[in-house]
Amino acid sequence: SRSIDLAVIPGDGIGTEVVAQGLKVLEAVLPQDVKLETKEYDLGARRWHRTGETLPDEELEALKGHDAILLGAIGDPSVPSGVLERGLLLKLRFAFDHYVNLRPSRLFPNTTTPLAGTPAIDFVVVREGTEGPYTGNGGSLRTGTPAEVATEVSLNTAYGVERVVRDAYERAQARPRKKLTLVHKNNVLVYAGHMWKKIFDRVGQEYPDVTTDYLHVDAATIFLVTQPERFDVIVTDNLFGDILTDLAAAISGGIGLAASANINPDRAFPSMFEPVHGSAPDIAGQGKADPTATVLSVALLLRHLGLDAEAARIEDAVCADLAERGEAGRTTAEIGDALAVRVAT
Amino acid sequence: SRSIDLAVIPGDGIGTEVVAQGLKVLEAVLPQDVKLETKEYDLGARRWHRTGETLPDEELEALKGHDAILLGAIGDPSVPSGVLERGLLLKLRFAFDHYVNLRPSRLFPNTTTPLAGTPAIDFVVVREGTEGPYTGNGGSLRTGTPAEVATEVSLNTAYGVERVVRDAYERAQARPRKKLTLVHKNNVLVYAGHMWKKIFDRVGQEYPDVTTDYLHVDAATIFLVTQPERFDVIVTDNLFGDILTDLAAAISGGIGLAASANINPDRAFPSMFEPVHGSAPDIAGQGKADPTATVLSVALLLRHLGLDAEAARIEDAVCADLAERGEAGRTTAEIGDALAVRVAT
Ligand SMILES: CC(C)[C@H](C(=O)O)[C@@H](O)C(=O)O
Ligand SMILES: CC(C)[C@H](C(=O)O)[C@@H](O)C(=O)O
Repeated sequence: SRSIDLAVIPGDGIGTEVVAQGLKVLEAVLPQDVKLETKEYDLGARRWHRTGETLPDEELEALKGHDAILLGAIGDPSVPSGVLERGLLLKLRFAFDHYVNLRPSRLFPNTTTPLAGTPAIDFVVVREGTEGPYTGNGGSLRTGTPAEVATEVSLNTAYGVERVVRDAYERAQARPRKKLTLVHKNNVLVYAGHMWKKIFDRVGQEYPDVTTDYLHVDAATIFLVTQPERFDVIVTDNLFGDILTDLAAAISGGIGLAASANINPDRAFPSMFEPVHGSAPDIAGQGKADPTATVLSVALLLRHLGLDAEAARIEDAVCADLAERGEAGRTTAEIGDALAVRVAT
Repeated sequence: SRSIDLAVIPGDGIGTEVVAQGLKVLEAVLPQDVKLETKEYDLGARRWHRTGETLPDEELEALKGHDAILLGAIGDPSVPSGVLERGLLLKLRFAFDHYVNLRPSRLFPNTTTPLAGTPAIDFVVVREGTEGPYTGNGGSLRTGTPAEVATEVSLNTAYGVERVVRDAYERAQARPRKKLTLVHKNNVLVYAGHMWKKIFDRVGQEYPDVTTDYLHVDAATIFLVTQPERFDVIVTDNLFGDILTDLAAAISGGIGLAASANINPDRAFPSMFEPVHGSAPDIAGQGKADPTATVLSVALLLRHLGLDAEAARIEDAVCADLAERGEAGRTTAEIGDALAVRVAT
């Protein structure tokens, strides 16, 4: 009999609310013979206020032992910007070598898009997760004076680029349309951009059945709103991926539906699943948050663990739930309950 | 009697076509007593193929002597990506200290937007033009090998940030809504991001009547498509400004209407006016390009030179022309002719 040993980091704001529903749906979807064990980690703003810690070494070490991590949301206005993002969320992504940050976008029926008409949106962004401008490399000199200089260094390695590009080709090849678009800004960021492009072209020779395309990041934002059907798989740098996936979420049902997976394909470390949205302190504790993004992240988790049928059941349930959603606003728990019922039957 | 000594860089692809129309409208709108002198500079892909030069020192020196520069578009697929962008376009922006890259977005009547409904779009992006990830600082090691490392350094100075932030406050204060939004990513790019935010807050104390707001760049892309009416003036870094203004163009009539001004507010160097779009080699030479973005850039040029009434006449003409645009596609020259007639009357 199988088992899943899951680490749960509810985090801040609506994080705790949506994670509770994600777990509810997970329990409901799992077959009898799969045993679920969860361990909650108290990390985030409250912990930081109490102890000054973001992610102590013992806890990082303990997290390593789990099969996967489910994370709600990190961040609170009471904590200086960057402290929890760098000290906890990005620390996890980097320490666990989550080099594939997977963010699917799909316009489910009956969901809202700010775009006119009903564009056919069904693509996935493979965002690099361990390099680029996110490495925390940089500094400031004469801080706070009129002579201050601040730098941010984007670090990119052939090693890091090739592995994520290869992963993206694999994903593109497995999809019906077999199309992969590289997004960068190689006419300005010539060092990193040319390296990405060269590796993209070279690895592409091993995937002759995959159609390739290159777009500058600025042009990509245009196509996302004018021709989103153009995209199948996108591979891009950490920062461009951050920007494009929020825009992608906005056009495909909103940030309340956007799931993500921080994957270490080598399985050297646990992968981490989290909604794209943040902790939304303005609506926290009111039962207003939509847990769907977290539930869809649970589906990504199941697929990563090889439970494909269960993942599909969740996605079908979300699809059916959205199709029948009325005008009446349901609470976070009501949506979670409805999804749990659907996946169980 | 006044005079305008204008340098013209038609550049590549549709650049030459749209610049011809921009000049036509400029001649038509100028009062009798303003003498227009133009000097054309042969810079861009053809020149590079012929001589290997992007922007020779003598020409950079000669350009300095003009009152302003009108530029069409730079770039061609036959030239390696980055050569002309870095060697010509960005070289001009940096050499002439164009620290205010001004990009207005306005949804004119009868224009297309991919967004549903008719959102009220009327904002301007003040994009920093001389710092950030655009400085060309970076490099690559073991280039082309599996051990390659490539860096891009974003350079930011208090000097550079304060002057553009101040310019943005001035612009916000002069507009009815008096609202200024800083866009950055200070939860990840903590060195540059915190410096921007601190300077933004400090300078803001001198503008108590301006309402301020801060958004991470990823969130800003969401609001651009879900609540574009939220924005009045946006101030942001060079790269974020590049990305946001293409998206802004896409939602407000398309890239065929997006004008821009590269301004040196100190007037130590000529400012440069150009459409946001590129050289579009796929439609070059066919009379298909919409010259409106260039014509609107000419309006920004006139306003910069103190010819406010003429600038307004151009904007009104564009507005009227768009309102009466039928389905029938007009050629580049036909649109230019129509606008020239309108501004002359
Ligand atoms: C919170 C922040 C550090 C994070 C990021 O920039 O990656 C978030 O925006 C995301 O997309 O997961
Ligand atoms: C062509 C390119 C260098 C340029 C930029 O990135 O600034 C363009 O995209 C723009 O926005 O003017």
